[in-house]
Amino acid sequence: MRIAVAGVGGMGTRFALKLAQAGNDVTLVETWSARLAALKTQGLQAKLDGQEVTMQLPAYAPDEVPATPGFDLVLFLTKSMQLADLARTLQPLYGPQTYVLCLMNGIGHEQTLGKYVPQERLLLGNTMWTAQMARPDHVLLQDDGSCELGSLTADPAQVQMAQTVVDVFNQAGLKPRLLDDPRYSVFRKGCVNGTLNTLCTLLECNVAEFGQTTPAHALVEAIVKEFAAVGAKQGLHLDVAEAVAHVESCYTVIGEHYPSMYQDLVVNNRPTEIDYINGYVARHGQAAGVATPYCQMLTAQVHVKEQLRHAHNDQ
Amino acid sequence: MRIAVAGVGGMGTRFALKLAQAGNDVTLVETWSARLAALKTQGLQAKLDGQEVTMQLPAYAPDEVPATPGFDLVLFLTKSMQLADLARTLQPLYGPQTYVLCLMNGIGHEQTLGKYVPQERLLLGNTMWTAQMARPDHVLLQDDGSCELGSLTADPAQVQMAQTVVDVFNQAGLKPRLLDDPRYSVFRKGCVNGTLNTLCTLLECNVAEFGQTTPAHALVEAIVKEFAAVGAKQGLHLDVAEAVAHVESCYTVIGEHYPSMYQDLVVNNRPTEIDYINGYVARHGQAAGVATPYCQMLTAQVHVKEQLRHAHNDQ
Repeated sequence: MRIAVAGVGGMGTRFALKLAQAGNDVTLVETWSARLAALKTQGLQAKLDGQEVTMQLPAYAPDEVPATPGFDLVLFLTKSMQLADLARTLQPLYGPQTYVLCLMNGIGHEQTLGKYVPQERLLLGNTMWTAQMARPDHVLLQDDGSCELGSLTADPAQVQMAQTVVDVFNQAGLKPRLLDDPRYSVFRKGCVNGTLNTLCTLLECNVAEFGQTTPAHALVEAIVKEFAAVGAKQGLHLDVAEAVAHVESCYTVIGEHYPSMYQDLVVNNRPTEIDYINGYVARHGQAAGVATPYCQMLTAQVHVKEQLRHAHNDQ
Repeated sequence: MRIAVAGVGGMGTRFALKLAQAGNDVTLVETWSARLAALKTQGLQAKLDGQEVTMQLPAYAPDEVPATPGFDLVLFLTKSMQLADLARTLQPLYGPQTYVLCLMNGIGHEQTLGKYVPQERLLLGNTMWTAQMARPDHVLLQDDGSCELGSLTADPAQVQMAQTVVDVFNQAGLKPRLLDDPRYSVFRKGCVNGTLNTLCTLLECNVAEFGQTTPAHALVEAIVKEFAAVGAKQGLHLDVAEAVAHVESCYTVIGEHYPSMYQDLVVNNRPTEIDYINGYVARHGQAAGVATPYCQMLTAQVHVKEQLRHAHNDQ
């Protein structure tokens, strides 16, 4: 499959590496100039499950990607706040045979992509893989993981493409699962981000450390209930108990992990994706008349912390 | 006036020093053995407005204080979680002529003291002075401040004593103000602690740094509204706009200050008074059927942070 990976941070590196190793034709698209320079000169480097790996793959700035021959798949794995710009810049890539897949953290990205790509060409999902980019030229990939994706509509060709992508990802060892309702799954994943990413960032701990504290369960449940209340207004009926259990399974599955938001703000002093996680719930809750005090307060606290640290993007 | 200062941390040091300098007969009562040892051997030491000061004052563990001659005033300035024990241990000091004054952070202390002291002998208030105890043998006292106190009932002798204490404090330069309704004032001060102490502790910043962030105003207002809703159930009708303005005045008045809760947890790794501030509002809100999600979440977050840091008392 001919695949453009748009956003080659930690997670983009994992997917690009695994897909290229499995024989796919992978092109890298990266906004951050220091990262792009490293990709061009040193190749895609990572410590993957304890082994140093390097692959030389074609790498481009967003406005430099050759549009022909067309891509079968454009896979978005950038930070949420960069999606709108990147999706617009990459418009020349969305050919008649091209599907667009978003596996990013954050809720509502299908609306952003929907400005440029018809719903019948959009695939949506999320990933439970972890990744850590310590420097522009190196990524640490450990922990077991999985991912999920599905078709946004019942269009037969689109449903078929979702299955094909699952097969390709499966051959690449990315442990994909085909979803009937990817928006539900994104909301469910949002519960993980909106609890663990946010609280581990504010409280500066890893997932297992947070999970061992006595207030953890009540905090997680209160936040998940707000996601569910706002989801219900959008026709997504989240199973609260199951979503809470899903969050809490992370305490053991990825316990040693410092979530991506922690890496963004605490380690790398960059702005966070909070507006696309708890901020999404707070904003849409307010619009729908649903009280979301927990998500409101968490969003505000993270923004305070960003401002205190003068968080900024390197690029 | 013959005064026992019960709890000689940072704030107790300020009051004991100023009152003794003004000629009052001051006795120190201290639970923490390392601090008590320093008080006995090195005296009461502080850097007071830039000047090193030392005074030798009688200092005792709580169960060693001579009960005769009786005290005119027992002034409680200990940490909230130590009050119940200390108030019980000091029972022999509450003679027929003795008044008890509590100027501590936290809400509801008059209920704890009321188990041992009749309401007609209780004075209540709070202080806007700052203090910082860096080591068991040294205290840093800077910033301008003030305090407020009043009588819990309309008992004429008690009202007279409140005025007498104000006069004594005034002579000592403690800038006291006489209150008609000290419980109102304690709730109003609770708004300062429940916003600035809590958020500066969670976000690890000083008062001015927090105040400069864009979410600060909305956060403060949301929290103060919860204090007001719970206060209303107790007959205390807080002026929300005035209380918010009072909190926000701290951004300039004590901007460089790291609140006592920050010092407790972040600097000294000790448990905080959160259960007597936001925790009080959350608990009494729950009992009265008033929603207090902000105070609930803040209380839980501070407890998570205490547990992550394995906070403990030195004594």
